Amino acid sequence: MTEILVPHDDLARFIAAILGAKGMSAEDAATVAEGLVWANLRGTDGHGVVRLPTYLDFIDRGQLDPRARPTPRVIGPSAIVLDCARAAGPVAMMQAARIAVETARRNAVCIVLVGETTHTGAIGRYPQWVAKQGCAALMMNGGPPFMAYHGTRTAHLGTSPIAIAVPSGDGGGGDPLLLDLATAVVSNGRLRQAVRAGEAIPCGWALDAEGKATTDPAKAAVILPLGGPKGSGLSFMFECLTGILAAAPVLAMFAAPATPRPHRQNAILIALDVAAFRPLEDYRRDIGQLAAMLRAQPLQEGFDEVLMPGERGTRYAAERRVKGIPLPAALWMELGGIARALGVTMPEAG
Amino acid sequence: MTEILVPHDDLARFIAAILGAKGMSAEDAATVAEGLVWANLRGTDGHGVVRLPTYLDFIDRGQLDPRARPTPRVIGPSAIVLDCARAAGPVAMMQAARIAVETARRNAVCIVLVGETTHTGAIGRYPQWVAKQGCAALMMNGGPPFMAYHGTRTAHLGTSPIAIAVPSGDGGGGDPLLLDLATAVVSNGRLRQAVRAGEAIPCGWALDAEGKATTDPAKAAVILPLGGPKGSGLSFMFECLTGILAAAPVLAMFAAPATPRPHRQNAILIALDVAAFRPLEDYRRDIGQLAAMLRAQPLQEGFDEVLMPGERGTRYAAERRVKGIPLPAALWMELGGIARALGVTMPEAG
Repeated sequence: MTEILVPHDDLARFIAAILGAKGMSAEDAATVAEGLVWANLRGTDGHGVVRLPTYLDFIDRGQLDPRARPTPRVIGPSAIVLDCARAAGPVAMMQAARIAVETARRNAVCIVLVGETTHTGAIGRYPQWVAKQGCAALMMNGGPPFMAYHGTRTAHLGTSPIAIAVPSGDGGGGDPLLLDLATAVVSNGRLRQAVRAGEAIPCGWALDAEGKATTDPAKAAVILPLGGPKGSGLSFMFECLTGILAAAPVLAMFAAPATPRPHRQNAILIALDVAAFRPLEDYRRDIGQLAAMLRAQPLQEGFDEVLMPGERGTRYAAERRVKGIPLPAALWMELGGIARALGVTMPEAG
Repeated sequence: MTEILVPHDDLARFIAAILGAKGMSAEDAATVAEGLVWANLRGTDGHGVVRLPTYLDFIDRGQLDPRARPTPRVIGPSAIVLDCARAAGPVAMMQAARIAVETARRNAVCIVLVGETTHTGAIGRYPQWVAKQGCAALMMNGGPPFMAYHGTRTAHLGTSPIAIAVPSGDGGGGDPLLLDLATAVVSNGRLRQAVRAGEAIPCGWALDAEGKATTDPAKAAVILPLGGPKGSGLSFMFECLTGILAAAPVLAMFAAPATPRPHRQNAILIALDVAAFRPLEDYRRDIGQLAAMLRAQPLQEGFDEVLMPGERGTRYAAERRVKGIPLPAALWMELGGIARALGVTMPEAG
């Protein structure tokens, strides 16, 4: 057996129990578990439960504080800095999302700078949640270096993503439209997936340790930026708009080699309350018309349908909610070892 | 002679005189002229004075109102809608930039939604100006359709750009770092330049009217998005965050063929006053350290230097401020015809 199927809610309860055993409150543990399972449901498995062992390692090394309480600092009527003190990424981001929506409802817009959090995972979850509350949302993240700056051959930039969601039900299954993309040709999560699966990667994704192009994911040392200077410029700017603005630069930490490698992320979340600009129903209608127009266009050769931003993930989620989440057997065994060590019961798997 | 050299300040005065003859106030005409010349100085000639004939055509067709006064509507302490009533893009955007900086200085951040303006040209100018005032700036623009949605073969999306600037002197010559990129593989301006120069374009830039890949810029009917679904998703979302939010959708207008084609653009400008987050000098220092670290990295084969975002444009500007702006002879003759018709004196050219 190379793949296990686990019901998504059982998996979430299991993750939460593990994090609870590591000292996280039940509420925060559920928030982190939902974040990881959200990624698995939507098919972005590289940001799913596969990251749990790393989270536990972060806790053991003091890089992630399971008891941290992010503290908001209001610096303007629509501007908040959330000092996260190494709280888990999903805990920090859900608090930021709630603050952003509450503030935008009062003052039309809100910008939350999220400082000194840890791995935020699939960032699309937070703009999607904000969009479900009727706000358009834009999020950018700054993380540790895996990617080359255009023209160089070392990993000194993050594959830092941007996600945008709008309150329109055109993202599939009535979900908001949701765009979530890395500034690299490929996300680090997707590359790790190729390593685990042992699949060759396309030329143009990565360089090896000598700076030569490689198609072997195990040799990939440096991910290449999307569109050369465009992707690396965006990643550089995202660090300026997140970590450096929050006085918690991530990339500079890596300039001097340190053991163990520190881990920290920062993010910025922007929410716009659509109803402050125009009636929400009119907004949704106009987006729906544009989506319908795009769906009706003739296809390029090699395509058999037009997908809206987020639609593929929503399809995965609909299927996986019924069939369960497929996990590699090796990961399942690793999780079993962790469960035994912490005295947590494993879910039933198919 | 195939190329003319014109001093940039003479060119700006000439453009302003032409626009003045079309009924624009001296102040607004100077703002538009500076916008076009800014693009020429920085080597993005596709957004430079080559657009002047189109601007005049827009005025003649009532698509651009040379006397329009953009009106700000405050919808929150940090949220303003600027109703532009078809004002020239540079006039609308400079007013938006001033409002964004004034408001951010008072309330830490500001978001200005710029509704119903016209061609904004090289958008980097506005975030750059905001950054020179000590604010980090992010701008997105929604314009008319030239680009395919991923998988389709018709032009139903804009090549809508994003620009980000931060108040750090690392963009070359002490200028702010400035990133400005189209969501297409190539900007429409750059493609028009290839048409005028008669150069072949790389495969992957565009499709012809039948939806086949082409390397002939004259046959290019549809520009392709950057990174497939990434670029087309961003462009779609930018329309949602600009035109649709401002109740002035651009792309939907083109669904039904109309003669003459209407012209309208919308934009969103976000400013963050760095000093409200942390001391500006510390911010600049940390960015400078990151830039220095990136510049010091070993190069990939085929590269001989590392350029920071905006640095190439700043180099062009330094050179062109001294040598003058090179213009194709055909454009110079076209401008000569316009000048004669309006009784405006042409500048001396080399």
